[in-house]
Amino acid sequence: MAIIVQKFGGTSVADAEKIKRAANRAIQRAQEGHQVVVVASARGKQTDQLVADALELNPNPSKREMDQLLSTGEQQTVSLMAMAMDAMGHKAVSFTGAQVKMLTDSSHSKARIQSIGADIILNELNDGKIVIIAGFQGVDEKGNITTLGRGGSDTSAVALAAAIGAEECEIYTDVDGIYTTDPRKYKEAVKIDQISYDEMLEMASLGAGVMHGRAIEFGKKYNVTIHVRSSIEETQGTLITHEVPQMEGILVSGATIQKELAKITLTNIANHPGNAAKVFAHLAQAKVSVNDIIQTEVSDQSANLSFTVDKADLADAQKTIKQIKEEVECDEIFVREDIAEVSAVGIGMRTHSGVANRMFSALAEAKINIDSITTSEIRISCLVDKDQGEEALKVVCDAFELDKDPSDRSF
Amino acid sequence: MAIIVQKFGGTSVADAEKIKRAANRAIQRAQEGHQVVVVASARGKQTDQLVADALELNPNPSKREMDQLLSTGEQQTVSLMAMAMDAMGHKAVSFTGAQVKMLTDSSHSKARIQSIGADIILNELNDGKIVIIAGFQGVDEKGNITTLGRGGSDTSAVALAAAIGAEECEIYTDVDGIYTTDPRKYKEAVKIDQISYDEMLEMASLGAGVMHGRAIEFGKKYNVTIHVRSSIEETQGTLITHEVPQMEGILVSGATIQKELAKITLTNIANHPGNAAKVFAHLAQAKVSVNDIIQTEVSDQSANLSFTVDKADLADAQKTIKQIKEEVECDEIFVREDIAEVSAVGIGMRTHSGVANRMFSALAEAKINIDSITTSEIRISCLVDKDQGEEALKVVCDAFELDKDPSDRSF
Repeated sequence: MAIIVQKFGGTSVADAEKIKRAANRAIQRAQEGHQVVVVASARGKQTDQLVADALELNPNPSKREMDQLLSTGEQQTVSLMAMAMDAMGHKAVSFTGAQVKMLTDSSHSKARIQSIGADIILNELNDGKIVIIAGFQGVDEKGNITTLGRGGSDTSAVALAAAIGAEECEIYTDVDGIYTTDPRKYKEAVKIDQISYDEMLEMASLGAGVMHGRAIEFGKKYNVTIHVRSSIEETQGTLITHEVPQMEGILVSGATIQKELAKITLTNIANHPGNAAKVFAHLAQAKVSVNDIIQTEVSDQSANLSFTVDKADLADAQKTIKQIKEEVECDEIFVREDIAEVSAVGIGMRTHSGVANRMFSALAEAKINIDSITTSEIRISCLVDKDQGEEALKVVCDAFELDKDPSDRSF
Repeated sequence: MAIIVQKFGGTSVADAEKIKRAANRAIQRAQEGHQVVVVASARGKQTDQLVADALELNPNPSKREMDQLLSTGEQQTVSLMAMAMDAMGHKAVSFTGAQVKMLTDSSHSKARIQSIGADIILNELNDGKIVIIAGFQGVDEKGNITTLGRGGSDTSAVALAAAIGAEECEIYTDVDGIYTTDPRKYKEAVKIDQISYDEMLEMASLGAGVMHGRAIEFGKKYNVTIHVRSSIEETQGTLITHEVPQMEGILVSGATIQKELAKITLTNIANHPGNAAKVFAHLAQAKVSVNDIIQTEVSDQSANLSFTVDKADLADAQKTIKQIKEEVECDEIFVREDIAEVSAVGIGMRTHSGVANRMFSALAEAKINIDSITTSEIRISCLVDKDQGEEALKVVCDAFELDKDPSDRSF
């Protein structure tokens, strides 16, 4: 008998029928002999409605009060789901984040989990109940309600799974798993059966939106197997796990595209120690989050420094860079907004050469010019013209046969 | 500088405009130099919607989960109101019942308040904030959310006022005060400026629905002046206070009518010690709440025993009485459903004879037959034919000149 955590997102609990379906999933697992914890989000568009209600009263509401307001959404779902299970003949009990002592820091709207009252949950499980916990929310040490920010319910679920020693954390969603790339952009994309935390982290940070990076980090840190699967179909989804030997046989697990990017280049920046660091210190101070950084030497004394930022941060980034242009001694500032970043991700790359070559050749063959390249241990990213972005993604997917099951690939 | 508690019911916070109006009321009081605590109910029809959502999933939901669900309604209101005040330039903070340690017993849906974390509230007041607290809800010692049942937000407000030593508890509502009788039934009814807790308790228990008895009991016990007033108009409402000498000059403060009643009579019940007690012990066991009891001796050995119950309890009452008919040795059981109870209430009655006589004479003159009479120290009630109920109310109001200000009355 194992403990299973099941997380249902807002679309999976949007109405009474869907709440019943989710409740039924949990009861099935319990009847198989498992102890089941359910983590649920707010119903469908409830959060949007509450945000609209708030903005009608205050265009810039305090984050503490927004958390107080928004946390009611999940609280409603969990109590309703407990009632549904009860009507189906299974004992259940609902808890808010505060009630299971999901203790966080006090960073309202993006709080970090510090500890969880596992005993409270385990006692109820041992009493034969399904335990239903409000996702996305916690409480600080003063009793203020906090929320965990984007992807918060996933993070709640994985953290809870870690705290109570669950065997698996099932993430129910409206897709049936993680795909080699976004099927809306490459319709031949195939579902990935198993992927490592590191690969999934790269995919998530590159815009594969199924799961948020923080939840994956928690899974990695506490070794919780995450199972992303469909809330409608009964099929097996994608397991996110630690590395297993057979994963290394797969060179490229997936590919991504990011289009809401801008690249800023500082030409002939003075190349003495600490000068580039200054740039990023100022950007951090302005709360601009920088994606990739590329520096190339121009001479002994100077270099060209480029970096990419999300479009939403571009205005702040430009303002910051203009202010420090003299200080860091650069010639000119160029901004490119017409770019897209196409990436290939796979832990097999670590031990296998030829991946970069295959990617660049394929792009060249398709006459797609590469503006710049960045790599990490398990990722290769190319900036290309935005117009050619989706084509570049297809080319990369074809090159790595991401339309096929790994076992059918020719490399 | 005094502490003022202001309670806004559901209709007074139903939409953004009304929330702003309520927020403005509180800010006005704060600007006059007072420390202000606001207690708020769920917005308009939110609670009804949540109840409907629950019943869709479970026709008989657990009370613990209903409390968990319904408490979100007030939590939404208080956070929204804090945002509204903030937008109006006044510091404010919202709290749930649990956050201000509104500790109750564990009787879900009708919990009783045991203690309140006054320090938490006083600290925020001393920090210059308006403190907005979710009414109707508390928390038991295990952290389960509880609700206080009917009239719960009024009870929260008065209990909070007592706990923090507030000078006055203002109850904002959609009427502008307590009237000598229901103005829908006697359009000449006038607003009462001041009424004692005891009178108000009698009026409330007799169906004058503005305030629930529990809140008044709290006010009486802790000597909190309650001010029932309009959430729309700025006029003075009705003060509910301890007795002041001038109140005794007023013979009858108000009159009420109850129509959803039934009377059960047991004829020739054996009149030996403890026999009548048996009847009411069985009724209590069946959770039938008995209003008035009238017993008249028929002979040395037997009596006729009558009592009234709410119509909702009639079926249970009849069933119980039938079961014990042999045990209590009575001849027959009669039930009257076609009755109404008309009552006059006033602490002046205590020291003044002639009130009963005036009431009975007036009814007789109007050819209204009195089925039976019960009295308490500050109340006289007559059961009459239901058809004649509203007419009887008018006759009583006229007899005691309840259409006039107390100072203009001729007795």
